[in-house]
Amino acid sequence: MIVTILSGGVGGARFVRGVREHLYRVAPDGNGGTTADIRVVVNTSDDMWLAGLRITPDLDSIMYTLAGANDEVRGWGRLGESERVSAELAAYGVGWPWFTLGDLDLGTHIARSSMLRDGLTLSEVVARITARWQLDVALIPMTDDEVETHVVVEGGTEMHFQEWWTKHRAKLPAQDFVQHGIESAVASPAALAAIADADVILIAPSNPVVSIGTILAVPGIREALADAEAKIVGVSPIISGAVVRGMADACLTAIGVETTATAVALHYGAREEGGLLDGWLVDEQDAASQPRIESARITASAVPLWMRDLDTSAQLAADALGLADSL
Amino acid sequence: MIVTILSGGVGGARFVRGVREHLYRVAPDGNGGTTADIRVVVNTSDDMWLAGLRITPDLDSIMYTLAGANDEVRGWGRLGESERVSAELAAYGVGWPWFTLGDLDLGTHIARSSMLRDGLTLSEVVARITARWQLDVALIPMTDDEVETHVVVEGGTEMHFQEWWTKHRAKLPAQDFVQHGIESAVASPAALAAIADADVILIAPSNPVVSIGTILAVPGIREALADAEAKIVGVSPIISGAVVRGMADACLTAIGVETTATAVALHYGAREEGGLLDGWLVDEQDAASQPRIESARITASAVPLWMRDLDTSAQLAADALGLADSL
Repeated sequence: MIVTILSGGVGGARFVRGVREHLYRVAPDGNGGTTADIRVVVNTSDDMWLAGLRITPDLDSIMYTLAGANDEVRGWGRLGESERVSAELAAYGVGWPWFTLGDLDLGTHIARSSMLRDGLTLSEVVARITARWQLDVALIPMTDDEVETHVVVEGGTEMHFQEWWTKHRAKLPAQDFVQHGIESAVASPAALAAIADADVILIAPSNPVVSIGTILAVPGIREALADAEAKIVGVSPIISGAVVRGMADACLTAIGVETTATAVALHYGAREEGGLLDGWLVDEQDAASQPRIESARITASAVPLWMRDLDTSAQLAADALGLADSL
Repeated sequence: MIVTILSGGVGGARFVRGVREHLYRVAPDGNGGTTADIRVVVNTSDDMWLAGLRITPDLDSIMYTLAGANDEVRGWGRLGESERVSAELAAYGVGWPWFTLGDLDLGTHIARSSMLRDGLTLSEVVARITARWQLDVALIPMTDDEVETHVVVEGGTEMHFQEWWTKHRAKLPAQDFVQHGIESAVASPAALAAIADADVILIAPSNPVVSIGTILAVPGIREALADAEAKIVGVSPIISGAVVRGMADACLTAIGVETTATAVALHYGAREEGGLLDGWLVDEQDAASQPRIESARITASAVPLWMRDLDTSAQLAADALGLADSL
């Protein structure tokens, strides 16, 4: 069974780990792995060049989480991280002082940048980098081209998404998001194959605007999703009118979408009306939203969405796959 | 007074530190510095791109030594160094496992590489990087162009100097040294000015072949030295038939020069016969070689050459400057 997931970073990473855990349990391969083929199409529009290094935050969040090498307490980056190199860079006035580059993380960035400069595509680089970690999950960049999300704030000032997100904590009201390079970006062949070949497609509870929205904006991805034989089930990143993690509300507000599970579902749209979704999981607290969502021709189901630990994440994956199976 | 020194890495670094210390003492500026203008033209042909980073071993050895940030015990690199990033790179199969990139050192490499990619010349980069350390010494790359020393070993196999030096500890008999890029390299303007403007020029006890020899091979440098008004005094890197540090003997043997203070002096040649040297310092143990050297029209003086500490290094600098002054 091929399970394809569209995902952003930290929130999506937990979901992907839950999917893997569920499949370890229900489709074990007898060697601690799974017979299922899990593929994740990952947003790369938060990527950037910083101090001459290519940083890929969403790919790394998923990789480290699946590798068990992530810092659960801090919520991002590597476990046992240190910042000796960063202190040196700051002393030389290089980089962004507000954007932490951990030592262990820098190892990944240097390796990746070196491979990119050797002429490998990002897809090839990700395959090499992830090989170290034995993830049982294929990570696939949405595109091998460089796409960069910039944020337009009051006064028309434009800044890199990371500056808005990390330095300003998304507190400067965003007026618009601009994905530089998106029009000419080519969907990675592996991403298109993952969508076309999938038995089921899941949309992780990631930022609907700058993560999932950007993946959908890569030319060819929407068409591939429309043509896919698999059912497409999404998981709401909103519970009871609030974001589960991150600052997606600031992004939704900027594009005129309410921060509710219903509004995000309607924003994605029903597949049979040219939108994305066949099914949509909302939290039990949002069970009352089901009729409104279903009136828009999206099958809705209310289940516990909080991923507190591996078990609750795996159960959420089971629910998502169960909903897809029922359609 | 402008004191210009031609230097390689570790051995040269100690000598440069001695020169600075001597000038702190005899030409103090009242603020802990010196009124003298010390400029070091540094070999850059051991430089290389590794894992997408530009590494400049000789420039860094001098910088760290003058900054007091060098590891005296190990003999190279930064004091208090760690290797967390290197371990990650090794896990990804990137870089040379036998070439250590310390975490603190990597901060310098990343900063430098970032500036180079921003379009700065190496001279500009070195000025920015060294500004942090308040060296009281100007470090000047011999050229802003990329020159790479390769070593030809038995069977005609060619390898980067670092591979021969660091991986093979110079134990593979060298047949030849090839400086890739040297013919088209342009001497850095600051190097030419440092030579032309100097009141005295010193040749550090660095490797006569791959350090000093390569500086001399940069088009324009020999002509500038010939035209310089200053006297040129060199310090022998050989004491009693053995190298003081490093593996210069393996390099000298490859080019057919004996490992003696006399042979190196004759290899450099007398300035008045189209060579490099007006004066040459040998160790007291090699006092008997003076007549032979002087017969070649190079004024020789025998003094203690061992730089055991700052005081002996400063005394050696005083002796070198004294010899130049006497010519």
